[in-house]
Amino acid sequence: MDNLAVIIMAGGAGTRFWPASTAEKPKQFLGLGGERTLLQETYRRIESLVDPGRVLVLTSAAFEGLVQEQLPGLPPGNIVCEPVRRDTAAAVTLGAVLCRRLFGDPVTAVLPSDHLIAPVESFQGTLLSAARAADAEKVLYTFGIPPTRQETGYGYLERGEQVLDDAGRRHFSLLRFVEKPDAKTARAYLEAGNFLWNSGIFVWKASVVLEAVQDLLPDTAGRLEEAASHFGTPRWPEALRSAFEPLARVSVDHGVMEKAGNVRTVEADFRWSDVGGWTALAEFLEADAHGNAARGRTAIRDARDNIVFCADPEETVALLGVSDLIVVRAGSRTLVVPRDRAEEVKKLVEEAGL
Amino acid sequence: MDNLAVIIMAGGAGTRFWPASTAEKPKQFLGLGGERTLLQETYRRIESLVDPGRVLVLTSAAFEGLVQEQLPGLPPGNIVCEPVRRDTAAAVTLGAVLCRRLFGDPVTAVLPSDHLIAPVESFQGTLLSAARAADAEKVLYTFGIPPTRQETGYGYLERGEQVLDDAGRRHFSLLRFVEKPDAKTARAYLEAGNFLWNSGIFVWKASVVLEAVQDLLPDTAGRLEEAASHFGTPRWPEALRSAFEPLARVSVDHGVMEKAGNVRTVEADFRWSDVGGWTALAEFLEADAHGNAARGRTAIRDARDNIVFCADPEETVALLGVSDLIVVRAGSRTLVVPRDRAEEVKKLVEEAGL
Repeated sequence: MDNLAVIIMAGGAGTRFWPASTAEKPKQFLGLGGERTLLQETYRRIESLVDPGRVLVLTSAAFEGLVQEQLPGLPPGNIVCEPVRRDTAAAVTLGAVLCRRLFGDPVTAVLPSDHLIAPVESFQGTLLSAARAADAEKVLYTFGIPPTRQETGYGYLERGEQVLDDAGRRHFSLLRFVEKPDAKTARAYLEAGNFLWNSGIFVWKASVVLEAVQDLLPDTAGRLEEAASHFGTPRWPEALRSAFEPLARVSVDHGVMEKAGNVRTVEADFRWSDVGGWTALAEFLEADAHGNAARGRTAIRDARDNIVFCADPEETVALLGVSDLIVVRAGSRTLVVPRDRAEEVKKLVEEAGL
Repeated sequence: MDNLAVIIMAGGAGTRFWPASTAEKPKQFLGLGGERTLLQETYRRIESLVDPGRVLVLTSAAFEGLVQEQLPGLPPGNIVCEPVRRDTAAAVTLGAVLCRRLFGDPVTAVLPSDHLIAPVESFQGTLLSAARAADAEKVLYTFGIPPTRQETGYGYLERGEQVLDDAGRRHFSLLRFVEKPDAKTARAYLEAGNFLWNSGIFVWKASVVLEAVQDLLPDTAGRLEEAASHFGTPRWPEALRSAFEPLARVSVDHGVMEKAGNVRTVEADFRWSDVGGWTALAEFLEADAHGNAARGRTAIRDARDNIVFCADPEETVALLGVSDLIVVRAGSRTLVVPRDRAEEVKKLVEEAGL
C-alpha cells in the first residue's frame, strides 16, 4: 500500500520486568520474547509493508541511542524525541502533524513498541484491512483483541454493528470504550462475547485524526502544528519543547477516541499481549514438559511452572526442586519471587533503593 | 610457645558450595563466613602464636597462586605443592618430614583450612593446651568437638580416661575411632555423652608422628624422608613427585591414628563447623529476625529462613515472598534450590555440565 506511514511509540518507561527492565532500558529495548528486542520485532512486523523513510519512531532523548542501535535500517532523522512525557494524545498528534508535513496525508499505523504479536502475517492482514478502510472513509481505527480470559488489566471496547471486508475480516462500529473493569465485570464481558480488549494499536489518515484533535483538543493540535513548521530546522528542538511542555497529560483514548464519532475497531486474528508482566510474557515463551518457561542459559531439574529469565549470554541460572517461581538474572541483579507476587516487586525495588 | 610450627592443609577441592565454590576455587579460598576467606581466617587464628616462617601451607600447584594472593605475609617458599592428591596420611607425613628438616623437632599443629571456628581465643587456648602436653609426652592429639546434634556426616571419637590440664581443659585417652554412623547410632552417641566429633585438627611433635608413620606406613615415611632431603634444591619438585605418586591413598585417621597406641583428644571449647554445606554455613551466619542468613548485597522482603549468598560486591540478590530456599549468585552462575535439597546440586552440576 503506497500511502502507508508508521509511527512507532517507543517512549515508555516501565520497570515491571525488573531487573531485566530498568529506567535506563525499559522493556521495548529487551529481547523478552526472542532474540530480537520488542522494538525490533515491532519494526520487523511492518518492514515489508512500508519504506523505512516513512517510519517515525517517537521516543525520549534518553532512549535515542538505543533506538539507533537497535534499528540500524531506520534513517536517524526519523527518530523524534519528545522533550517531556505528555501521554499518548500529545504523542499521536505529534506523529500526525509530522506525517502531514513529511508524507502528505498518509494512512498511518500507530504501533506501541512493547507488545508481543504472532503471527506476523495475520497482523499485517489486519493492519492492511484497516488501512484500506481508513483510506476510503474518514474513520479512526483501534484494534480490538478477542478476550481469552477474565482480564482486569485492560480497557474494553463494546462493539456495535459488524462490517466484513473483502477477506472476511470483521470490522465493527463502537458503542463505547470501557475503563479497566473489576473481576466480576470482566467476567461478564468475557461471557457476553461482544467486548474486545483495547490494544492501543491505531490506524487512521493523518488528516482525519488531526481533524478530531483540532475539534477535541484544539490547544494540542494548534501548538504541535505550529512546532512542526520548524521540523528539520535548527529551531525544531526548542520549538517542540515550547509546544510540548504546556500540553495536557491525556491519553488518546480518553482525549480523542472516546469522544470522536467516527471510531471503528477491526478484530485481531493474531495472538497479542501487551506483556504487562512476567506471567503475561510466559504465555508467549515455549515451556518445557513441566511448565517451566525459560529464556537464556538455564539448567532446570525436577522443577515445575517456573519462569526463568537470564539476560546475559555469559550467565547461567540453575533451578533444582522449586516451583511457581520467577527467577530473573539481568545486569548486576538477581530476583527470586513467587509467580503470584510479581506485582509487589516494584515496591521492593523502591523501598530497597535497587 | 617457642617450639611451635603450623601446617595448614589447603589442598581440598570440593564443590558443595557451587556456584560459590568451583574446581578452580574451592571453599577454603572463599569468604563464606565473613570478609576474610576461610584460609585467611585459619592463618589469622594462629598468627599471634607462631612466626610466619614456621607456617607451612600444603596445597596443590593449581592453588599456589591463590594461597600467595590470600596470605601475603607467608614466605612464598613455605607453600608446598603436593604433585598429586594422596589423602591425609601422605600430606601429614610430608608436613612432618619438612618440619623436622626446617625447624628441628617442633610441636606441630595440623589445621584444615576450610573450617569455621569461633572464638579465636578459645581455639588458641585449646591448641596451646594440647601443644604443651605433646611437647612433654610422646602423644598424638586429635581435637574432639562435643556433639550438638545427631550428626551422621562426621566420624566420632569414644573418649576414655580424663586428664585435666592446669586451666581445667579436658584431655582424654581414646577408646576408639568410629566411622560416620547411621542416624540411630549417632543419636545413641549424642545421648551417651562420651563421644566427640573427630575434627581433623591434630597436634603432635614431628618426631612422634613420624615414629608412628614409620611403624604403620613405613613406605610413606621412607619415601617422603628421602624426598625431603632435596627440599630447597632444584631436584625437589621431581623428587617429591617420584616419592608421592606411588603412595597409598589413605587418611591419617585410618592409616595412623586408629592404630597408634599413644593417641589422645582434647575437648574443644570453641564453636566449630567443617562447613560441609550451605545449611552448616548458615549456622555461622547472622540471621535476620525472619531467619534469613545472608552474605553480600541482598534485598529481602517478606521472606523466611532463606540462605542467600552473593559473592560479587557489584551484584545484588533480591528475594520477595519466598522461604526455605538457598539462593547463590557467584561467578557467572545463579542457583536456586530448597534448603533440604542442597545435596542434589552436585548431580545437577554434573548432568548439566555446569
